[in-house]
Amino acid sequence: MSMSAARLSRATAGRFSLYLRYLEELVQAEAATVSSGALGQALGVSEAQVRRDLAHLGHLGYPGIGYYPGELVTVLRRVLGLDRSWPTILVGVGNLGRALLRYQGFRQKGFQLVAVFDAEPNLIGHRIEGLEVQPLSRLAQEVKDRQVSLGVIAVPGEAAQEVANGMVKAGIRGILNFAPVLLRIPEGVTLVSVDLTIQLEQLAFLVQQGQAGTGPGDQAAS
Amino acid sequence: MSMSAARLSRATAGRFSLYLRYLEELVQAEAATVSSGALGQALGVSEAQVRRDLAHLGHLGYPGIGYYPGELVTVLRRVLGLDRSWPTILVGVGNLGRALLRYQGFRQKGFQLVAVFDAEPNLIGHRIEGLEVQPLSRLAQEVKDRQVSLGVIAVPGEAAQEVANGMVKAGIRGILNFAPVLLRIPEGVTLVSVDLTIQLEQLAFLVQQGQAGTGPGDQAAS
Repeated sequence: MSMSAARLSRATAGRFSLYLRYLEELVQAEAATVSSGALGQALGVSEAQVRRDLAHLGHLGYPGIGYYPGELVTVLRRVLGLDRSWPTILVGVGNLGRALLRYQGFRQKGFQLVAVFDAEPNLIGHRIEGLEVQPLSRLAQEVKDRQVSLGVIAVPGEAAQEVANGMVKAGIRGILNFAPVLLRIPEGVTLVSVDLTIQLEQLAFLVQQGQAGTGPGDQAAS
Repeated sequence: MSMSAARLSRATAGRFSLYLRYLEELVQAEAATVSSGALGQALGVSEAQVRRDLAHLGHLGYPGIGYYPGELVTVLRRVLGLDRSWPTILVGVGNLGRALLRYQGFRQKGFQLVAVFDAEPNLIGHRIEGLEVQPLSRLAQEVKDRQVSLGVIAVPGEAAQEVANGMVKAGIRGILNFAPVLLRIPEGVTLVSVDLTIQLEQLAFLVQQGQAGTGPGDQAAS
């Protein structure tokens, strides 16, 4: 299974996240089984696509029955790497950084924010959500001590590349970037960027085009 | 040109946003021309893809010269709908909402936040970034008075669907949703969702897979 998972595209992984979210709802609602048709309808993707996606996970569908939500949840969490804890650091505790710190979803999914940093001297030593804001000079040591592999960048655009460089040098393997700049990172480090302006530009473009409402399947694409 | 623009995919529009950002940097740097190869290299997409993308915009490439950055910027801004102003409302002025209000990028790109709303009585009447926080009961009237077509949702998940319903009813045509839930919206309204947990899940998944660093082309896809 890990073999086929290794060949999954980013788009498939995005749909897996959506399947997982919906299946967790079904487990909470104590649904016994779910069909690929019902899954597809709930998430706005075709039944055939659901079948193709879930086939990557092994033989989990039962003819005439469908899928067992609890079983799918377990497998999806493992494939997505959510059955483990990911120690994560955050750089930048402005409004966006604070919003991320307070965001419950991260912790629930195994993303544990273990250290926060800021360049602003006045903020150093303050506690936010139980974490003491540290100077950037402490970043490398904290990454090493706490075996951190993920870093979140929530600083202004002009500071982002330097922060990314520091993360890479410290051994961070994945960066989630909210700064509205194109970051240059070396091979072997994964970058996911969330550019809020681009999201809004996309929306304006689609509205201008008069495109119809999109299902949740498209939510992953955004 | 508007005919071909109308057939553009969301992915193409995403790359247009990235081309635009890079070309604006070139204009600022007073670069006279740029080749499709240089554009592709800067954004991590193939030269052939750049040519295909820009062909949608009309005959803008000059053999042996390349493209004129200023000319491309003008056309891209028009195609993306950024040559006009988009009155936008925001619902939810928690940390994330405040971060969005303070975010300079929106205003620079023509997204003008004209009204903000919150369900919390204690916040009503407060001014944030020059805007008075209004109760949700005022939403429909403000949308009408200010001819608002875009709405941003930055409320907790459990409140998001009701806010979306209110926006749709008021005539909003495009919704940018930050709440971590799958929203149901009717046809004719465009939805772009930014799910912060899903972005982090993607990152963890890619790091776990050991995928190499991604160019800015992938940044749009995330």
